[in-house]
Amino acid sequence: MIKIVEISLLYDFYAQLLTLKQQKAIDLYYNQDLSLAEIGENLNITRQAVYDTIKRAEKLLHDYEDKLHLVEKFVRQQEKIKQMKLQFLEYKKLIEKNENVKLLELLQNIESTLNELLIE
Amino acid sequence: MIKIVEISLLYDFYAQLLTLKQQKAIDLYYNQDLSLAEIGENLNITRQAVYDTIKRAEKLLHDYEDKLHLVEKFVRQQEKIKQMKLQFLEYKKLIEKNENVKLLELLQNIESTLNELLIE
Repeated sequence: MIKIVEISLLYDFYAQLLTLKQQKAIDLYYNQDLSLAEIGENLNITRQAVYDTIKRAEKLLHDYEDKLHLVEKFVRQQEKIKQMKLQFLEYKKLIEKNENVKLLELLQNIESTLNELLIE
Repeated sequence: MIKIVEISLLYDFYAQLLTLKQQKAIDLYYNQDLSLAEIGENLNITRQAVYDTIKRAEKLLHDYEDKLHLVEKFVRQQEKIKQMKLQFLEYKKLIEKNENVKLLELLQNIESTLNELLIE
């Protein structure tokens, strides 16, 4: 399961650097959950050719990540934004009893920007 | 000037996808501000070869951006984080008069996370 998540995430970032055949094979295998045989029928190539295409594409995705570290940076930043969101909610809980409407409105503006930033 | 900023930014993201010679040529030209002739001496190639290397590397950087849109996403996100920071500072100015120490402490935690997120 961890591997599926990881390849899907790498694919989200680097799909456009793969060939169309590699993109289809990875998408059908990891996102649509098709078997190698089913993908073979779909792409009109042998099961072995599907396997080789997927292995080659996986290696390319990992190579791009080793060079650019985009997924690593993305995951780290999402963690930081989630941490800020928790701090923020804690703060909001404390201030909600306050009757100052202007403060609450500003707080809501911040929250809405934060939610736009945060990809759940 | 705009072009220099743009290529430098593309280079920050995609340098590792260029050859070493392309990396050096772009870095010396855009970041170190050397002339084509100086770069030629440095890399022991002709001025024309330096020019061709830089043009080829610029095209590759733009091609990667057209496929991955990383710089575009980065700039958009930085804008959003800056907007949040402004909302936040406005809010902080209003609350600073408040004597509630716990609230201010929480606000400072949020600010410090925000600053870690924001690359100035």
